Amino acid sequence: MATETQRGIAVLGSTGSIGRQTLDVVRAFPDHLRVVALAAHGNIALLAEQAREFAPEIVAYTSDDPATQAQAAELLPHALHGVEGLTAAATHPDADTLVAATSGLIGLRPTLAAIRAGKTIALANKETLVMAGHLVMAAAREAGVDILPVDSEHSALWQSLRGERIAEVRRLLITASGGPLRQATLEEMRDVTVERALAHPTWRMGQKITIDSATLMNKGLEVIEAHWLFDMPYDQIEVVVHPQSIIHSMVEFVDDSIKMQASLPSMHLPIQDALSYPARWNRAETALSHPLSWPNVARLDFETVDMERFPCLRLAYEAGRRGGTAPAVLVGADEQAVPLFLQGKIRLTDIAAILEETLSRHTVIEDPTLDDVLAACAWAQDEALRLYSEPTAARERNSE
Amino acid sequence: MATETQRGIAVLGSTGSIGRQTLDVVRAFPDHLRVVALAAHGNIALLAEQAREFAPEIVAYTSDDPATQAQAAELLPHALHGVEGLTAAATHPDADTLVAATSGLIGLRPTLAAIRAGKTIALANKETLVMAGHLVMAAAREAGVDILPVDSEHSALWQSLRGERIAEVRRLLITASGGPLRQATLEEMRDVTVERALAHPTWRMGQKITIDSATLMNKGLEVIEAHWLFDMPYDQIEVVVHPQSIIHSMVEFVDDSIKMQASLPSMHLPIQDALSYPARWNRAETALSHPLSWPNVARLDFETVDMERFPCLRLAYEAGRRGGTAPAVLVGADEQAVPLFLQGKIRLTDIAAILEETLSRHTVIEDPTLDDVLAACAWAQDEALRLYSEPTAARERNSE
Repeated sequence: MATETQRGIAVLGSTGSIGRQTLDVVRAFPDHLRVVALAAHGNIALLAEQAREFAPEIVAYTSDDPATQAQAAELLPHALHGVEGLTAAATHPDADTLVAATSGLIGLRPTLAAIRAGKTIALANKETLVMAGHLVMAAAREAGVDILPVDSEHSALWQSLRGERIAEVRRLLITASGGPLRQATLEEMRDVTVERALAHPTWRMGQKITIDSATLMNKGLEVIEAHWLFDMPYDQIEVVVHPQSIIHSMVEFVDDSIKMQASLPSMHLPIQDALSYPARWNRAETALSHPLSWPNVARLDFETVDMERFPCLRLAYEAGRRGGTAPAVLVGADEQAVPLFLQGKIRLTDIAAILEETLSRHTVIEDPTLDDVLAACAWAQDEALRLYSEPTAARERNSE
Repeated sequence: MATETQRGIAVLGSTGSIGRQTLDVVRAFPDHLRVVALAAHGNIALLAEQAREFAPEIVAYTSDDPATQAQAAELLPHALHGVEGLTAAATHPDADTLVAATSGLIGLRPTLAAIRAGKTIALANKETLVMAGHLVMAAAREAGVDILPVDSEHSALWQSLRGERIAEVRRLLITASGGPLRQATLEEMRDVTVERALAHPTWRMGQKITIDSATLMNKGLEVIEAHWLFDMPYDQIEVVVHPQSIIHSMVEFVDDSIKMQASLPSMHLPIQDALSYPARWNRAETALSHPLSWPNVARLDFETVDMERFPCLRLAYEAGRRGGTAPAVLVGADEQAVPLFLQGKIRLTDIAAILEETLSRHTVIEDPTLDDVLAACAWAQDEALRLYSEPTAARERNSE
């Protein structure tokens, strides 16, 4: 049964968590979706397997590792390579929607190219809006394309805003599970082990994002994303702790009415909703079926965020309000600081100290170009590492 | 400041709870709303006061009591009288919206007349849809007018459905506070005093509706209303107990996503939203301001309904599914049974027994006219009273 034309999708980051779940959605709705392009970094074995299953028009990978390139030459002889390959995948003429799910910065230029080519963007990559929100949203407005969120919080905001007017919104309330250290004291956070910081209560994710959840840095980046996605001033974006991760975010309107979206925690739903929009597809008979039974929910809790214990959230608000290259610096410094913690080289509480010090040493460029943004991020990565090597710097101050 | 044309409203039932709160909304938004017509039953003193304040084009009252008529002749010499007066108020040419907030059946014909005259209907009267949903919704479709709900549950459903497609709804989940007897045992319910049954935990309302909340009859009538308002089969309407009355109802879509609306319990909001639609008006600077502070909410609970203890809810589903004149019989029987309980003449648990027996004695008329519906309701009132006088009837069976 193919009652409507299939939507062509290009998936950048197809071997990552979001990419693989995107392909689950394609498997569940083969009449609605067709994979036009697949791109990954270096997991050639999985990429080749996906290419066999979905027969895309383009396959691309970005790793420069010689062994990876040799493997690609064997398993995927027609694969394109590098950012050019990624861009070709993102802008393929048969693609209606780009699923932008690469990690880090590599997807930024291909995503902008896809916007200019008129593709709908299903956006899973955080850095895109955090670092280049002004460029991305301006390009989307100019091209008349939708930027649709692929994460549970922004999808909840977006769904709650359907049929509503943005001028009638009083506040966006982004919910936060609170992460693995929701109930830890400041002292416990100072001494927390990598293992405990990685034990997220409700979401299974990669190590970097799980640590960003433990510091609420992740929530801070979501605040900046919400600012750009919904054109909302920072004073009108708040974070509410909700440990069960059932309510994924809320919108409060000027009349005091609040709308919210709920579901069991799973990335399949925001992915599916971005791909099906403006329709909703019935999952009841699919492998993705995952309904929420209300009486089983029993209880939902809400708490305020303790900004003392989670200074990364405060820093994200500050960087967002400062604008320009400040959020890119935050991202760059965090990309260095989190691995230092994972390697046991710094305390969890040093992460915020490194971010704050890096931000304080940066001269913000207003209205930056994409090159400015990428340069600021690279500078922050170096600076954060330098701070770690300087014994007199942020960490000592933090340990006082 | 009058940047947009004021909306003219006619208020039927202006001296009742919803009517008075409607006038609060007019006071809060004088630039948006103008009272064109006011109608009440017998509270002439208050009606005259309202007429002085709002200077409507028409005033009407319906009481046939000679003393009331004498008082009206003195205080409101130009007032119209009876159903004709009510209809003239409901269909006044300057009225854009009719607030249908009379209690009981008297507003049925005037509301149908207003629909045919092209008025938007802000509907607070339950009987209108429960008894005559098929007539009202058909008339609204034909006239191309909106029937907008004025109660918290249906307003929540309506708000959650904005921008959505009714065909993509899996279930409507109507929340119920559970009323004053949520945690009572069946034995306690059998012996409950009038006083305890009137002690509603979250809503202050009239006696009849509070008892209907204690038996969940009120929730059953809301299920029937939701069926008509949203064209939803009964199998797709469920009731979830939520004691805090913060989440006013939910919509589950076919993709497993759930949307819901929340606010502090107050009728001002659903009234305002029906009058402002499709806009939302900012209450921050008005006397109605009543925002919900999330961290103060702290906790929301959800429970299943115990159909054993609340047979009135089951009976409402049965009458709704049966259709025709069955819901009118339910309404008529309940209108007799509740006062019998309030007067101490029957037990609370006798109410359901009387309703069930009355329904079982009724021969349903399919696709009834308005006259059929009113006749069935009147028959049920008589029959319920007859059952009370027959010692061998329902109540004895119930006490076995």
